[in-house]
Amino acid sequence: MSGNIPINAERLLGEIEHISQFSDVPAPAVTRILYTPTDMAARRYLKQLADAAGLPWREDALGNWFVRLQGTEPDLPAVATGSHIDAIPHAGRYDGVVGVLGGLEALRAVRETGITPRRSLELIMFTAEEPTRFGVGCLGSRGMAGLMAWDAMRALQDANGVSLEQARADAGYKGKLESVALSPDAYAYFVELHIEQGPFLEAADREIGIVTDIVASTTVRVTLTGEGGHAGTVPMPERNDALAAAAELVLLAEKAANFRSRGLAVATVGMLDVHPGASNSIPSRVNLTLDVRAREMRVRDAMLEEIHTGLKALIRSRQVQHEWQVLNHDPACQSDPRILAAIVRSAEALGYAHLSLVSRAYHDTVFMARHFPAAMIFIPCYEGYSHRPEEFTAPEHIVAGTETLAATLVELAAL
Amino acid sequence: MSGNIPINAERLLGEIEHISQFSDVPAPAVTRILYTPTDMAARRYLKQLADAAGLPWREDALGNWFVRLQGTEPDLPAVATGSHIDAIPHAGRYDGVVGVLGGLEALRAVRETGITPRRSLELIMFTAEEPTRFGVGCLGSRGMAGLMAWDAMRALQDANGVSLEQARADAGYKGKLESVALSPDAYAYFVELHIEQGPFLEAADREIGIVTDIVASTTVRVTLTGEGGHAGTVPMPERNDALAAAAELVLLAEKAANFRSRGLAVATVGMLDVHPGASNSIPSRVNLTLDVRAREMRVRDAMLEEIHTGLKALIRSRQVQHEWQVLNHDPACQSDPRILAAIVRSAEALGYAHLSLVSRAYHDTVFMARHFPAAMIFIPCYEGYSHRPEEFTAPEHIVAGTETLAATLVELAAL
Repeated sequence: MSGNIPINAERLLGEIEHISQFSDVPAPAVTRILYTPTDMAARRYLKQLADAAGLPWREDALGNWFVRLQGTEPDLPAVATGSHIDAIPHAGRYDGVVGVLGGLEALRAVRETGITPRRSLELIMFTAEEPTRFGVGCLGSRGMAGLMAWDAMRALQDANGVSLEQARADAGYKGKLESVALSPDAYAYFVELHIEQGPFLEAADREIGIVTDIVASTTVRVTLTGEGGHAGTVPMPERNDALAAAAELVLLAEKAANFRSRGLAVATVGMLDVHPGASNSIPSRVNLTLDVRAREMRVRDAMLEEIHTGLKALIRSRQVQHEWQVLNHDPACQSDPRILAAIVRSAEALGYAHLSLVSRAYHDTVFMARHFPAAMIFIPCYEGYSHRPEEFTAPEHIVAGTETLAATLVELAAL
Repeated sequence: MSGNIPINAERLLGEIEHISQFSDVPAPAVTRILYTPTDMAARRYLKQLADAAGLPWREDALGNWFVRLQGTEPDLPAVATGSHIDAIPHAGRYDGVVGVLGGLEALRAVRETGITPRRSLELIMFTAEEPTRFGVGCLGSRGMAGLMAWDAMRALQDANGVSLEQARADAGYKGKLESVALSPDAYAYFVELHIEQGPFLEAADREIGIVTDIVASTTVRVTLTGEGGHAGTVPMPERNDALAAAAELVLLAEKAANFRSRGLAVATVGMLDVHPGASNSIPSRVNLTLDVRAREMRVRDAMLEEIHTGLKALIRSRQVQHEWQVLNHDPACQSDPRILAAIVRSAEALGYAHLSLVSRAYHDTVFMARHFPAAMIFIPCYEGYSHRPEEFTAPEHIVAGTETLAATLVELAAL
């Protein structure tokens, strides 16, 4: 059955172009943050598309959005696909969006081809894959998998002190948080289409990436509290400068990852705020995030331990206090071999060259994989650029990925 | 004549208490930034006090504010005092304010005592001693001294891209910028009352500090531009992380000052902003401020040179670009011996113990001293704390400083 589901490329590419306009910054950059007016406008646009296609949809209490194409045996667990539409500040237009609009196009294409699959197909738009607003990535899929304590989720606050509970209520999502959890038999399979966000497919000149593993990922929020004071009057030996301590931490994290870079280890301090933040004032407090990843969990854990131990030593000598709050500490993820086989068969039937890859970014698939057989399809992106305005994936690669996704969904729906 | 000008302590202390309520943050912290509604409200309060005292005032095109007590020979150059009321984010209530309200109290006390001095006395409230909004400290006195190129001043922008020209026009200050410059014979003497912002007077248990020198001070805005990308997908060896480069700079500056701390050298990175500022995004750009001070100009200059040279080396190896924009590069300042003598005589006549000090913070006095004989009176502050909410100066020290100031002004007005 694979290979004969023609998609409407013009429709899909036009929609990807259109949704990029829902952004808080000028093009080509995209900023689209959870529950902002911009995010809500983009969500309304998606609903219009589903309505226009006559596909029924529902939302849960976090704003995860589910679109259904009914199968011939609707009581069987469905086959799901999906991704996200939120974008970190000054990001690009393809990360996540390709998997949501590509998934919608796959459902439309299946129906327009006249196929009614055995299992129902569902598209999921996951709420807040990016950790921008509440510091926790994959909020929606984490909730769906029940992998975050509900009280911890209720305790989340954004940088302005707005709680997740308040923010989702303001956005119109008012059900109980617990209702977000999916039944373990909700889905038979989950497969996500996504841009690679790395250089390997482009370098190898292959259209389709078969994701065998997703790296283990941890995010820690670190607060360093020293002592403030006037930058002119406090002598150097009497200082407890929180930013100087933070600078040592940044370099410590970099070094810990450099030593393990053959194990695909990376460490990044991506956010860092200085208090009080005046040119003539000694920093009294620094808040920062530390993002640590590696293919193997033991490598990730060893790196974290080394950084935390080093931090404890340096703050002792600097007489600075620290808080170390683990925001997420996620397992590595292995893909389901039946889905991998279905992707390979679909790609080959369509004449697309493929390559097996490890995903070094985490995705909603990590959390869907806790309960459901799951895997991912990658497509190339220019120079591996992602999370920046230069992010670009060629139209023909978007089409190839969507055709492969549609064929894979149909094949899985027959299993 | 010294020592017999009783001040109204209750009035003065009540006014210091009252003005602390003009703040953008809850007490005891004070944030009062140039031309904000809060700053403008505090300025209106000062005008009410001058009006109530029947003292005429005028403002210049930057909002520097001048209150005059006419002498018997009003055509002679006047004797001036003054300080500032702006406060960096989360600062205290005494820095600057004591010199403005203490100066006003001195003028009122002189008049209420029935003395009409030979030279007129003037109180100046200087606009924006703190560099918070436009990155340049002592904006008002710098302009009055004509020590900043007018075009450079016109080119100043705040963090939101609002120009100084726009901001002052919005605040109602519409004259030509050039009109701010004072005539070189405007004043015969200038003396500023200020809290020490350091620990020495308190440790020595003396009421009055005689400031003999003000350190040389430089502020540099540094921008580091690397390459962004996804924190999971870009391998460590391929990164050009702007924050990692900034971390090295922070530690380099600290080390350069540590080596020279016996020369009262200090170096501080007080502001640091990370772009794009997401936990899963590699920092592509960092903006920071570097504040460098030392008693001797050659020490300050050597320290700056060492930091800049080190920065150029580290960004070469990290393949990061840099901009190095000197915002101010100010001379050290020596006090006028006639004023120092008048302060000593006044303090001794009043029975206050005194101590000679170097000011490690810069003040509007640095700029007034370019054209007029100038000096400063310091009073103790608790633990040397300043630029933080815990800043505290005891009522009896405020009274002692104000009495000494009033006596000094009267003595100088007779010269």
